[in-house]
Amino acid sequence: MIKVGIVGGTGYTGVELLRLLALHPQVQLETITSRGEAGLAVAELFPNLRGHVDLVFSEPDPDRLAACDLVFFATPNGIAMGMAEQLLSRGVRIIDLAADFRLRDPALWQQWYGMEHACPALLEEAVYGLPEQNRAAIAGARLVANPGCYPTAVQLGFLPLLESGCVDSSSLIADCKSGVSGAGRKASVGTLLAEAADNFKAYAVPGHRHLPEIRQGLEAATGHPVGLTFVPHLTPMIRGIHATLYARLESDAPDLQSCFEARYRDESFVDVMPAGAHPETRTVKGANHCRIAVHRPGDGSTVVVLSVIDNLVKGAAGQAVQNMNIMFGLEEDTGLGSIALVP
Amino acid sequence: MIKVGIVGGTGYTGVELLRLLALHPQVQLETITSRGEAGLAVAELFPNLRGHVDLVFSEPDPDRLAACDLVFFATPNGIAMGMAEQLLSRGVRIIDLAADFRLRDPALWQQWYGMEHACPALLEEAVYGLPEQNRAAIAGARLVANPGCYPTAVQLGFLPLLESGCVDSSSLIADCKSGVSGAGRKASVGTLLAEAADNFKAYAVPGHRHLPEIRQGLEAATGHPVGLTFVPHLTPMIRGIHATLYARLESDAPDLQSCFEARYRDESFVDVMPAGAHPETRTVKGANHCRIAVHRPGDGSTVVVLSVIDNLVKGAAGQAVQNMNIMFGLEEDTGLGSIALVP
Amino acid sequence: MIKVGIVGGTGYTGVELLRLLALHPQVQLETITSRGEAGLAVAELFPNLRGHVDLVFSEPDPDRLAACDLVFFATPNGIAMGMAEQLLSRGVRIIDLAADFRLRDPALWQQWYGMEHACPALLEEAVYGLPEQNRAAIAGARLVANPGCYPTAVQLGFLPLLESGCVDSSSLIADCKSGVSGAGRKASVGTLLAEAADNFKAYAVPGHRHLPEIRQGLEAATGHPVGLTFVPHLTPMIRGIHATLYARLESDAPDLQSCFEARYRDESFVDVMPAGAHPETRTVKGANHCRIAVHRPGDGSTVVVLSVIDNLVKGAAGQAVQNMNIMFGLEEDTGLGSIALVP
Amino acid sequence: MIKVGIVGGTGYTGVELLRLLALHPQVQLETITSRGEAGLAVAELFPNLRGHVDLVFSEPDPDRLAACDLVFFATPNGIAMGMAEQLLSRGVRIIDLAADFRLRDPALWQQWYGMEHACPALLEEAVYGLPEQNRAAIAGARLVANPGCYPTAVQLGFLPLLESGCVDSSSLIADCKSGVSGAGRKASVGTLLAEAADNFKAYAVPGHRHLPEIRQGLEAATGHPVGLTFVPHLTPMIRGIHATLYARLESDAPDLQSCFEARYRDESFVDVMPAGAHPETRTVKGANHCRIAVHRPGDGSTVVVLSVIDNLVKGAAGQAVQNMNIMFGLEEDTGLGSIALVP
Repeated sequence: MIKVGIVGGTGYTGVELLRLLALHPQVQLETITSRGEAGLAVAELFPNLRGHVDLVFSEPDPDRLAACDLVFFATPNGIAMGMAEQLLSRGVRIIDLAADFRLRDPALWQQWYGMEHACPALLEEAVYGLPEQNRAAIAGARLVANPGCYPTAVQLGFLPLLESGCVDSSSLIADCKSGVSGAGRKASVGTLLAEAADNFKAYAVPGHRHLPEIRQGLEAATGHPVGLTFVPHLTPMIRGIHATLYARLESDAPDLQSCFEARYRDESFVDVMPAGAHPETRTVKGANHCRIAVHRPGDGSTVVVLSVIDNLVKGAAGQAVQNMNIMFGLEEDTGLGSIALVP
Repeated sequence: MIKVGIVGGTGYTGVELLRLLALHPQVQLETITSRGEAGLAVAELFPNLRGHVDLVFSEPDPDRLAACDLVFFATPNGIAMGMAEQLLSRGVRIIDLAADFRLRDPALWQQWYGMEHACPALLEEAVYGLPEQNRAAIAGARLVANPGCYPTAVQLGFLPLLESGCVDSSSLIADCKSGVSGAGRKASVGTLLAEAADNFKAYAVPGHRHLPEIRQGLEAATGHPVGLTFVPHLTPMIRGIHATLYARLESDAPDLQSCFEARYRDESFVDVMPAGAHPETRTVKGANHCRIAVHRPGDGSTVVVLSVIDNLVKGAAGQAVQNMNIMFGLEEDTGLGSIALVP
Repeated sequence: MIKVGIVGGTGYTGVELLRLLALHPQVQLETITSRGEAGLAVAELFPNLRGHVDLVFSEPDPDRLAACDLVFFATPNGIAMGMAEQLLSRGVRIIDLAADFRLRDPALWQQWYGMEHACPALLEEAVYGLPEQNRAAIAGARLVANPGCYPTAVQLGFLPLLESGCVDSSSLIADCKSGVSGAGRKASVGTLLAEAADNFKAYAVPGHRHLPEIRQGLEAATGHPVGLTFVPHLTPMIRGIHATLYARLESDAPDLQSCFEARYRDESFVDVMPAGAHPETRTVKGANHCRIAVHRPGDGSTVVVLSVIDNLVKGAAGQAVQNMNIMFGLEEDTGLGSIALVP
Repeated sequence: MIKVGIVGGTGYTGVELLRLLALHPQVQLETITSRGEAGLAVAELFPNLRGHVDLVFSEPDPDRLAACDLVFFATPNGIAMGMAEQLLSRGVRIIDLAADFRLRDPALWQQWYGMEHACPALLEEAVYGLPEQNRAAIAGARLVANPGCYPTAVQLGFLPLLESGCVDSSSLIADCKSGVSGAGRKASVGTLLAEAADNFKAYAVPGHRHLPEIRQGLEAATGHPVGLTFVPHLTPMIRGIHATLYARLESDAPDLQSCFEARYRDESFVDVMPAGAHPETRTVKGANHCRIAVHRPGDGSTVVVLSVIDNLVKGAAGQAVQNMNIMFGLEEDTGLGSIALVP
C-alpha cells in the first residue's frame, strides 16, 4: 500500500483526488490538510464521500507528511514550492497539482505567476507529468509537476501533428472552452451560477498562464520555438474542456487519421475517435480519458483537432493518480477504470 | 458469472445499466436488444462505453434471451408483459425496469397505463423490488418489478414515519422535483434544453402514474388506506430527484432522528444525514444511495422529510443491480461502490 | 418627471431597477450610489446598460438624495433604516427593496434579522407594498416596504383561499423553489455554478426570514393567526420562483377557479391561468406578472396552488416600480410592459 | 400602421417575432399561420404572450396574406420560395427568416440545402438583409433574405478587417459557439436538456450550411475569394452566439480599435467595446445588439475578434424587424429598444 498525504484538500482537485484515491486498491490515505477547515470531517464538507472517507482535515504537520510515501499538493500556486525541499529530503515523493513546477524557467514563472520562485533549483529536477510524453521520466521522478487542464487537452491534440512535422508550427491556434469548475472552489462573483449560466465569454485573451506552459511542452516536442494563439472561454457547464485546435498543413500532408491512431495506439487514456467524429465533453465526465478527433474540412490546408477531457480528472486529479501509478510501478490504469456518466 | 441480457438498451436506464454492469465483477453481458438500432455498436451510440462494452444492438432473439440467467427489461411500458411468461417458463429470471408489474391490481394498471394487462396472473407472483422493504421476497423471486424513481424516493422517506405510526396517514404530501432524464431519451419538445433550462414547472398535478404505485407501497407498510397528494415538478438538471415530504404528527411524536436512524441502520444504500442537514441531489449523482434528512420546523406538528436519489441509479438501474445481487446471493453492494461526482 | 435616486445599485435588484427605470417614460435617474464601486461607470459593471445608463456610481450624498422625489434602497438589510428618517424629513419618498420595514413588530424583526431596529417608530407608518392587497395605502405612503420574493409568490397564491375562508388556515404548506439570483450578487461558494448547477436542495428548513413576513401578510388577510410550514429550495436556474402551495379544504368548498378569477379580475399583473394549467417560471422571465393556477387533485380535500414570478421583477424591482407608479399617480403598468423572453 | 402577416409562427424565431412585433408601435399583426397548430390560440402555445397577442394560428390563406403590407416567413427552409412570387406579384413585401434567398447562386443553394431552388429568378432581386452592409438596398427591396445567426456574428466581426485590407483573407478562422435554441423548436434527441446540458461539442466540422453564406458575404466585401474555416459548437445555454474570429495581419497593421470604432460609429446595433474587453453573450440576451471586441494577443500577427449576438434577435427576429423598419422608412430602432436581461 502506498501511504498518501494530501495538502490542501478542500478545493475541487482535492475532492476529486479523494474520490479516486478512496477506491484505489493500493492507496492508504494517511492525512489531508487544510488550514481553513482543520477539525472538520472531510465527509461533512463533501457528503458524497460519506462512508468512504473517514479523515478529518488537519493542520499541515511536517512529520505526518514525512511519514507518507507520496504527497499530493492540491493547493493554490505558491504553496508546494515552500514545502517541497523538506519533504523530498525526507524521502517523500511529490506530485504538485498546482503550477509551481510546471515551467522550467524561473524567470518565466515569476513573470506569469507574479512571485519569485522559492526553489528554482528544483525546477530542473521536476518532471512534467504528461505520461503520454514523459512516461519514462515520470517513472523515476521524485517530483512531478502535474500539467494544467488546458495544457493537457491542447498538447495531446497537437502532439501527433507536431511530431510528424506536417504543420506550420509558427501559427497554431488553440480555441479552448472550459467548464467553470476550472476556476476552483472559491467564492467569487464571476463564476456564480447567476453570472455564468446561460452565458458564454472569452477571457484572458491578452494572455493566460497556461500559454507559456503549452508552448514549453510543444517546443519540447518539436525542438524549436512554436507560435501559438491561445484563447480560453468560460462555458456554462461544471466539468469539461473542449479544445478546438487549428494548424496549417505544410506540403505532403499525411493521412491524419492514421497519424493520430499510430501515435496513441498504446495509450490507455487517449481515445482517437473514428474519422468524422465530434467528441463530446460528457463522454469523459468523471473519466480519465482524452477523446480526440481530427478533421480536414473541405480537404483544405487547415487541420482541425477536437480534444476533450474532464478538467478535474485527466486535467488534474486523474492524471495525478496516473502519474502516481507510474511512479510506483503499478498498472497505469489502477483505480482509474470508472466510466463516464452519460447522461 | 451471471449471464445477463438486456431488452431495450437505447434509453437512459439502458445506458446506465450498461455502465454499471460493464464493471460488475460477476456479470457477463450476453446480449442487448433494440429493434430500432439493431446492428449499431453500443459504443457508437454511447461513446462513454468505448473500450468497455463491445456488444452490438440486436433484434430480440428468444433463444439468446432464454440462454441468459437474468434478463433486464429497460423498455417502454407494455413490452415486458408480452415476453415475461415465455422467458420465465424457460427458467430465466426477470427484472422489469418499466411499470408492467408494479401494480398488483390489473384494473388499476389499466386505468393508469391505458392498456389491458397482458398477463395479470403474473402480477401476484411479481415482487416489488424495493429491497429496503421486500428484501426476503426479492431473494426468492423469479420476477421483480423495479420501482419507479419517484416511488423510491417517496417511500424511503415516508416508511419510518408510517411504520412507527406517528403521523396522520390520511394527509400525506409529496412535493417532488425531478431532473429531465426522468422523461427518457426520446425526441420531444418539452424537454429540449431550450424549453426546460432556466425554467421550473409542476406537471401532472391532476394525477401521475406514480401516485397509485406510491400509495400501494405505503399501504403495504401501514396495512390501511393512505391519503396522498403527489405533485411532481420538472427542474433544470439532468439527474436527481428531490422529494420534500410533509406529514402531520399525531400525539406522542417520537424522536424523529432516532426513528430514521434505527430504521435504516443496516441499509447500505440509505444514508440518514445528521439532524439539521439538507441533502443535495448531487451528492448521489451516479451513486446508488438515497440520502435522507428529517426536520420538524419550529417544533410544530408538521414533519418535513428531505429524500434525494439519482433517478437513474437508485431510481432505476442501480436499484435493478441491487435487486440482481439479492436474487443471485451476491453481496448487495457488488458493483455499486462508485462515489458520486462532486462537483 | 419623477426624480429618482438609487442607493446601492450594484446588486441584482439594483441592475434590474436600472433596466426598468432606464426605459420608464416618467423617470429621470438622478443618482445611484455604491460605496464599493464609487467612480465606476454603471455601464462598465453592467454592459447590458451601455447606451442606456450614463450614470457613474457615487458615494451616498445626502443632499443629492434629498433632491430626489423618490429614493429606492437596493441595499443589504439594515441600511435603509439608518437613512430613512432623514430623507423622509426632507420630503423624499422611499421604497425599500430590503427587509428593514417589512415586519411591523420590531422584536420580531430583531429576532429574525439579528440586529436591533434603528427606527421602530417608522414601522407603523411603513406600508407593505403588495399592491394587490394594499393599493390604497401605497398610494398615500411616504415609505413603502417592498415585499420579499417568496412572500410575493406565496401571498398572491394563498390570498383568494384565505379571503374566501374555504381552507384550514392552521395547516398551510408553501413548498417554494427559487433560482439562485435570489441569493444576490455576492461572492459565495454555495451559489457558484459548479456547486448549484445540476443540483437541487432545500435550505433553511428550520426557519427562513420570509416565514414571519408571509405569516404577517396572511394574518392581515384573515384577521387571525395562521399556521404555515415554509420550505425554500434552490433550483439551478437564474431567475424565477415557483411556489407550490397546499391547503386543506373545509366543508362547502367553492368553485376554486372562479374564486381565483374573481379575486384577480382587475389586476394587471396577476394572471389566473385556465383550469388545469401548469404555469412555468420562464413565462414571467423579465416580466412583472405572477401567473397562478389552482388544482384540486382527485377532487380531494387538498387544494394545490401553483404560483410563479420572476424573483427580480414581481419579486423585487418590478414590484418596486409598480409601487412607485401607484405612489405618483401614474398608470400602474407604466414602464412595465415588456414581455417575458421565451425561450 | 404596417399590416403584417407571419407564415409559420410556432418556432423560436416565430415567437420572438411576436414578442417584438406585439410591442412595435407601427405594426398591426394581421395573421399568423401554422398548418400544424391551426385553431390554437397563440397565447396558449406561448403563455408569455398572454394579454399581448390575441391571434389564433390559422391555415395559410393567400388572400389574407396578400392583404398584408409585409409577410415574414419564419418557416423551415424551402417554404418561402414556394410562396414568394405570388405574394410579391400582389404587392406584398417579404422578409424570409429562413435560408431560401440567402445564396445568390442556385447551384450552390441546391448543393448545401439538398433541393432544387423553386424560383431562381428571384435570387438576383433578393437583398441580403445585413443592414450594416446593405442598408440602401434593403430600403428599396421587395424581398429581403434575413441572414443566418452565425453569418451575422461572423460577418460583423470580420468586416472591418476585410474592408481595411489589413488581414490575409485566405486563412480566416471562425470558431463559433451557439446556444441550443439555434437548433429550433422541434423534437429531437440531440438537443434534449439531458443530452446538451453540462456538455460541449463541435458539430458539422466537415461543412455547415452557413459556410457558403458567410463566404459570399465576405467576398462581397472584399471583391475577391476568401478562405474560411468555420467550426460551429453547441454550448449548453438557451440563447446566444459567441464568434471567436482569427485572422493574420499583413504588414502595416492599423490601430485595430480605431478601425472597428470608425466602421461602426453610426450603427445603433453594433457596439464596439473598449479595448481589452471580453463581451458576454448575456449582455445581448433579448436585445438586438452585436457587441464586439478586438484583440491582438502579445502584439503578434494574429488578430482575435470576439463578436456576440442573441441568435434569436440580431441573429433572426430582431434583425428582421430592423430590416422592416428600414424598408418602411421608420427609425431603424423602432420597437427594438429593450435592454438585455442581466442576470
